[in-house]
Amino acid sequence: MMSNRSGETGDRLAEAGRHTVLAATEPLVLDCGVALSSVPVAYETYGTLNEEKSNAILICHALSGDQFVASTHPLTGKPGWWANTVGPGKVFDTDRFFIICSNVLGGCMGTLGPSSPHPKSGRPWGLDFPVITIGDMVRLQALLLDHLEIDTLFAVAGGSMGGMQALDWAARYPERVFTALPIAAAAHHSAQNIAFHEVGRQAIMADPRWRDGAYYDGEDGAAQGPDAGLAVARMAAHITYMSEDGLTDRFGRALQDRDALTFGFDADFQIESYLRHQGLSFIDRFDANSYLYITRAMDYFDLAAQAGGRLADAFRGTRTRFCVVSFSSDWLYPTAESRAIVHALNAAGAPVSFVELETNLGHDSFLLDVPEMNRILTGFLSSAGRARGIE
Amino acid sequence: MMSNRSGETGDRLAEAGRHTVLAATEPLVLDCGVALSSVPVAYETYGTLNEEKSNAILICHALSGDQFVASTHPLTGKPGWWANTVGPGKVFDTDRFFIICSNVLGGCMGTLGPSSPHPKSGRPWGLDFPVITIGDMVRLQALLLDHLEIDTLFAVAGGSMGGMQALDWAARYPERVFTALPIAAAAHHSAQNIAFHEVGRQAIMADPRWRDGAYYDGEDGAAQGPDAGLAVARMAAHITYMSEDGLTDRFGRALQDRDALTFGFDADFQIESYLRHQGLSFIDRFDANSYLYITRAMDYFDLAAQAGGRLADAFRGTRTRFCVVSFSSDWLYPTAESRAIVHALNAAGAPVSFVELETNLGHDSFLLDVPEMNRILTGFLSSAGRARGIE
Repeated sequence: MMSNRSGETGDRLAEAGRHTVLAATEPLVLDCGVALSSVPVAYETYGTLNEEKSNAILICHALSGDQFVASTHPLTGKPGWWANTVGPGKVFDTDRFFIICSNVLGGCMGTLGPSSPHPKSGRPWGLDFPVITIGDMVRLQALLLDHLEIDTLFAVAGGSMGGMQALDWAARYPERVFTALPIAAAAHHSAQNIAFHEVGRQAIMADPRWRDGAYYDGEDGAAQGPDAGLAVARMAAHITYMSEDGLTDRFGRALQDRDALTFGFDADFQIESYLRHQGLSFIDRFDANSYLYITRAMDYFDLAAQAGGRLADAFRGTRTRFCVVSFSSDWLYPTAESRAIVHALNAAGAPVSFVELETNLGHDSFLLDVPEMNRILTGFLSSAGRARGIE
Repeated sequence: MMSNRSGETGDRLAEAGRHTVLAATEPLVLDCGVALSSVPVAYETYGTLNEEKSNAILICHALSGDQFVASTHPLTGKPGWWANTVGPGKVFDTDRFFIICSNVLGGCMGTLGPSSPHPKSGRPWGLDFPVITIGDMVRLQALLLDHLEIDTLFAVAGGSMGGMQALDWAARYPERVFTALPIAAAAHHSAQNIAFHEVGRQAIMADPRWRDGAYYDGEDGAAQGPDAGLAVARMAAHITYMSEDGLTDRFGRALQDRDALTFGFDADFQIESYLRHQGLSFIDRFDANSYLYITRAMDYFDLAAQAGGRLADAFRGTRTRFCVVSFSSDWLYPTAESRAIVHALNAAGAPVSFVELETNLGHDSFLLDVPEMNRILTGFLSSAGRARGIE
């Protein structure tokens, strides 16, 4: 069911979390036209599904995220990426809600992706893997819900690409979504968004170890992939996740473990050392081809185009309640993008709460412990929970 | 005197422009402590120096610029990078002014840089080249002025890194600078500025063809350098030269020569095609090691630190007249950076004109034909020219 870059990685992943093979009877037909059968999906759950099956919340992860939203990551040993918001008494209160988080289609943490074995050859798909979309990710999540016998989500929530999935869910399956919480998201990728992703992809593809995506069969069984290119891609992306003010506040021109400039190309500045660390730690847990496919899915995302050109039409007649959150210092998916979503929802007559939160932490604000965000989300979920009759 | 990546490049460069060897008697002592003798400098001039030698303007180029400010580029065949502002009747009016533009120290267009032959081995310096600073570039330009027997500049002007040199000139040699015109510049590199440069450097260094900077001796005599890495560096940098609005206006999500998404990794979007072109065309005219050294010099630039910590002290007692220009959509060196310069100049009692121009063209606005910028610069130069007694 699972495949990974190395045997060791596979072993550690297999020990963690839940996995299932979906769509054994009916294939998953992708936007590109390819039909996939027997799709492995890796997911985690927290809390208990109530008898009415009315308290399920799907949390969708971002580009570099995974299903370990509130569990220790099996490869890094670090806490879950949203451990501060998911748990007993937290924003996504596991005493009240049944939380589901699955690795996205195209990912590298157990769900089918380019590093998974091709059913015919048994060797990793590599670039033979079909190009996927946010909609394809959502369709697969819907199959997982079918498998779990959950008709309706109380909420679908996520930040960044997770927010795109939340929007796509609400547009694609309005009758299955009671509330949607897109955070620090956008209804399409802008030219600048595409540009940064293209730089990352070119960095990976420029690495000779990428070998047109066929880098999995290292002699020692371990990864022989384009680590250097993937690290550069991650470094470039990471800058876009922070704000200029935030970088200045945190690093400024402070030097790294030295008193003076060295007149060399070592990491003289803390910001350099920090970025290099971000690049190096990413390659230990992420597959370069997955990075290509997932960034491509994000670039392709255009909810208005899916609806025929007008974003409001994506939500026509919806009864889903929306909570849209943006951050003042997020220049990757700036508040204007969230406001465009809100205007479309208003035009569609959908109930929507919207707040722009003041932070200087940039796009990554949604991952950090922002008390005001926690208050907003908690209040929205409480109110909606009462309307849904969840204790 | 000159060295280049290939014989052909060298021939074409040798035919173009003026070159001189400076500091044969007194070495150029760099900030890092290294002393350089017999430094080749390549430069262009336009117009005529008047008898009083009072009408000289030094134009300083940016990271990827060169001395061909208003001449056809010998490698690309394209017009000079500021051909729209330098010429008869233009902003920098060659009927009135004597314009000088030299390739910076560390560059690859004729002035000493890492691709130049080491005086002892005759082989390119590569990473043995000393790490240089903006101040070192300025010191070498001052030696060029000595060689040309010009005591005082009527003006020193430049955008981006050129503006940093203009600021350094005014701070280092106030008695030699009648006016200074830093455009779209900053008095230091911010954490975000350093971060983007570090990504570019890592992209180059990740390319196995970089070979620790010793890539010049290709078997066929042509460049065997880290072209792929340099192209990625250029792509990442190029995004920072444009604004999000400008990218949206110009490209949006428009497709490149196709009617529909291809579900592949080709350049589906125009912005991808454009960025790839920027990367590929850059490697034909730029040396990867020069990119490393010049970005490092920019990162090291901190005029306040040079002056002991307070920016105003860099300009204490100056009689230079300043014209500071910023662009509203420049997020690389945003208006706040220019305003900090203006505040320091005010505190130092220096005469300063400051304007933020409204454009959506981002940092690259200074290179483009912005009529309002042309009017501002022309007016400033006319007024200062009268004060200086230039006809």
